[in-house]
Amino acid sequence: MTISHCDTLIHAAWVVTQDDSRRILEDAGIAVSNGFISAIGSWEELAPVWYPKRIVDLTKHLVLPGLINAHTHASMTLMRGLADDLPLMEWLTKHIFPVEQKLTPELVHLGALLACCEMTKTGTTAFCDMYLMEEHVGRAAEEAGLRARIGEVLFSFPSPAYASQDEAFDLVRSMKERFDGSNRVNTAVMPHSVYTTSPELLEKSMELAEELDIPLNIHLAETQTESQQSIEQHGLRPVPYAAERGLLSKRTLAAHAVDLTDEEIDLLAKSGTRVCHNPESNMKLASGIARVPEMQAAGIPLSLGTDGACSNNNLDMFSEMSSCALLQKVHHKDSTRVPAQQVLDMATRGGACSLDMPQTGYLAKGQAADLIALNLNTPSLMPMYNPISHLVYAAQGADVALTMVGGETLYQDGKFTRIDYPALREEIRDAAEFIKKQFEQGKMA
Amino acid sequence: MTISHCDTLIHAAWVVTQDDSRRILEDAGIAVSNGFISAIGSWEELAPVWYPKRIVDLTKHLVLPGLINAHTHASMTLMRGLADDLPLMEWLTKHIFPVEQKLTPELVHLGALLACCEMTKTGTTAFCDMYLMEEHVGRAAEEAGLRARIGEVLFSFPSPAYASQDEAFDLVRSMKERFDGSNRVNTAVMPHSVYTTSPELLEKSMELAEELDIPLNIHLAETQTESQQSIEQHGLRPVPYAAERGLLSKRTLAAHAVDLTDEEIDLLAKSGTRVCHNPESNMKLASGIARVPEMQAAGIPLSLGTDGACSNNNLDMFSEMSSCALLQKVHHKDSTRVPAQQVLDMATRGGACSLDMPQTGYLAKGQAADLIALNLNTPSLMPMYNPISHLVYAAQGADVALTMVGGETLYQDGKFTRIDYPALREEIRDAAEFIKKQFEQGKMA
Repeated sequence: MTISHCDTLIHAAWVVTQDDSRRILEDAGIAVSNGFISAIGSWEELAPVWYPKRIVDLTKHLVLPGLINAHTHASMTLMRGLADDLPLMEWLTKHIFPVEQKLTPELVHLGALLACCEMTKTGTTAFCDMYLMEEHVGRAAEEAGLRARIGEVLFSFPSPAYASQDEAFDLVRSMKERFDGSNRVNTAVMPHSVYTTSPELLEKSMELAEELDIPLNIHLAETQTESQQSIEQHGLRPVPYAAERGLLSKRTLAAHAVDLTDEEIDLLAKSGTRVCHNPESNMKLASGIARVPEMQAAGIPLSLGTDGACSNNNLDMFSEMSSCALLQKVHHKDSTRVPAQQVLDMATRGGACSLDMPQTGYLAKGQAADLIALNLNTPSLMPMYNPISHLVYAAQGADVALTMVGGETLYQDGKFTRIDYPALREEIRDAAEFIKKQFEQGKMA
Repeated sequence: MTISHCDTLIHAAWVVTQDDSRRILEDAGIAVSNGFISAIGSWEELAPVWYPKRIVDLTKHLVLPGLINAHTHASMTLMRGLADDLPLMEWLTKHIFPVEQKLTPELVHLGALLACCEMTKTGTTAFCDMYLMEEHVGRAAEEAGLRARIGEVLFSFPSPAYASQDEAFDLVRSMKERFDGSNRVNTAVMPHSVYTTSPELLEKSMELAEELDIPLNIHLAETQTESQQSIEQHGLRPVPYAAERGLLSKRTLAAHAVDLTDEEIDLLAKSGTRVCHNPESNMKLASGIARVPEMQAAGIPLSLGTDGACSNNNLDMFSEMSSCALLQKVHHKDSTRVPAQQVLDMATRGGACSLDMPQTGYLAKGQAADLIALNLNTPSLMPMYNPISHLVYAAQGADVALTMVGGETLYQDGKFTRIDYPALREEIRDAAEFIKKQFEQGKMA
């Protein structure tokens, strides 16, 4: 028997690997070295062979790949619950936009740190984020230890981060350079949507994405209103218009993709465009019900996201998985639609595809040790017949007992290892006072 | 200044009273004596006046009335995740019913105890339950300290609990006597549905409910299939048929009420029938989308329930509140529909009405001290602008830090005061082995 050394040896009651054959292991071991999985298999096989620096006892737990939140706006946690139950346009233009005009790099960073805490605590190990002054979201992700695909939101009008289109593109370039050395954070070009950008900005965005060889993310076909506006402005619905601008490709991640015709699903599928579905945001903002089974059948790579905390109002991917499955079942009047395994795939493997992070999304030899553990002793996860059912229909983010990224424990049993959470709380309280003041002033204006 | 004595004085950062004017108090106090609220108001006013035996420090917490789960089948936690993503009838007849035939009083009791743990931990203080051998659910509720309205499920065919209709009614009478002395549990007459009962059973059920002066609960208009069957069997859709049998009245609580015409909503409203809405079960089983705004507008007293853990798959009323609001918004393509306050009303005041427990559902002088406290320090509840928004859109059951019924703390910071949870876990594991065996045998049969 050859003895091998590793940094960490995990002993787990269950491991849902999400590997190509969706293996589920009972009484299993995972050896981790230098942030990657060196071996995964039965505890009986691994325990005698692997000599670790530390053992992590998860024998009352279910281990699975870290969940991937493929579309969010992390810093918006600062505005969670500030305004709800309003018509979408009133909510955006009267409540959210005025506050966003007053944001500072410090506030963007602070909101993102809070979001990272929430995501870490609820089992998300990687996220895709679009916002203004996004560099400071990237900084927060690095500090928190989460993986992130980030991009400055690009409009055809000035934002608090840039005065002109050229400045905006310069920002994208400098962010790419800034994070090129990061092993957790990388960038994308992120034009906001077809209704907030000029044709030229969209085309230049794709050119830049190709030049820098990074992904392109965009909100696309989120509502029927967007479709109507697109027809009025461009003579085309959002998806054909995006196609005409050269925006649909394997490089592209489209967020929402709610209002789609059959032909548009076909266009997305043939171009290789990936789609991030955001069921709770689509429900809360009454955007519509995405055609998940049809997109799935067409072969579009699907992932799952929470969207920002203002339109959800949490960043819990477990809740998002449950809502995804349940909404499709009732909408299609068919309880067999979008079964649990498919939803879990969206939140893991699909997310890895959407973020272009192939080393994540499933647990196998050679993959990054990005994983989470759920406490199976909690009443709502008892008894345990089917781990996949539990993950999608019964579990909550709060059941997460451990979160690990690249072999590093970021959270365990209520404690963050990197972030001084009590200090952060005080900063958040002060920031909320400021936001509230801006909000009240905005309402009066 | 007169000094008064009380058992407990609660000091809370926030109190969402849910009283008639929906007052929300900051830095508040609640004095509790003999299980009831003696005073509620600002801490500044209460602290000098009330001399308590103990002080409960909830200064980092939001206190609200305990949530009321107005329709569930507690013992079905034992079958949580045993079978999902199946057509409703296949699920019921091939998977659930065969296992239920093998249930024993011990298993019914055990499953209900587990459900009580989950409900207590996630902020539910009262529940309404229909099942077989229901006396043992009542026993579990008494042991766990929760309030419950319970009823033996009545079919026109033998159940594991009775061989004939007469035996079934005798069981209802004896249960009424058994729990007459209980200060937490009381009973109702609970015919299962219009499709599992004879006209005679339904009529006698209402006679018995009137004779014993207790409520009547029934599953009603849950699916379009039920409506079609009712037309075939009785020549009427479920609601008019129930009306003809004399089942609609202020005494009645109808669970589900999904497939309703305008006229049927009118019938329910005019008769005073109360309705318990179960959005997650309706979604997961693809039963349909209940007409919540229309029922609300017609003046039907609405409550909220999780249904059993097999069709949900948890008993978390916070998740149920969120799903209720979000589903209605997307269904009606209107983000202003079913706002947060309305949903919270359903889960508190509406529940109290549905369970005929007027001393619960809101916090005011003279009301029972049935209350829960959420930890506001958790990332997903930060910052805090609007408590009602947080309760419906951001909070999860796991955020509950304290659960109190009748002034008695049943759960605090991860610990149950009455139930030996580690011992219960072992019993549940053994029971799950038995259930699994029955399930496998059922599949082979």
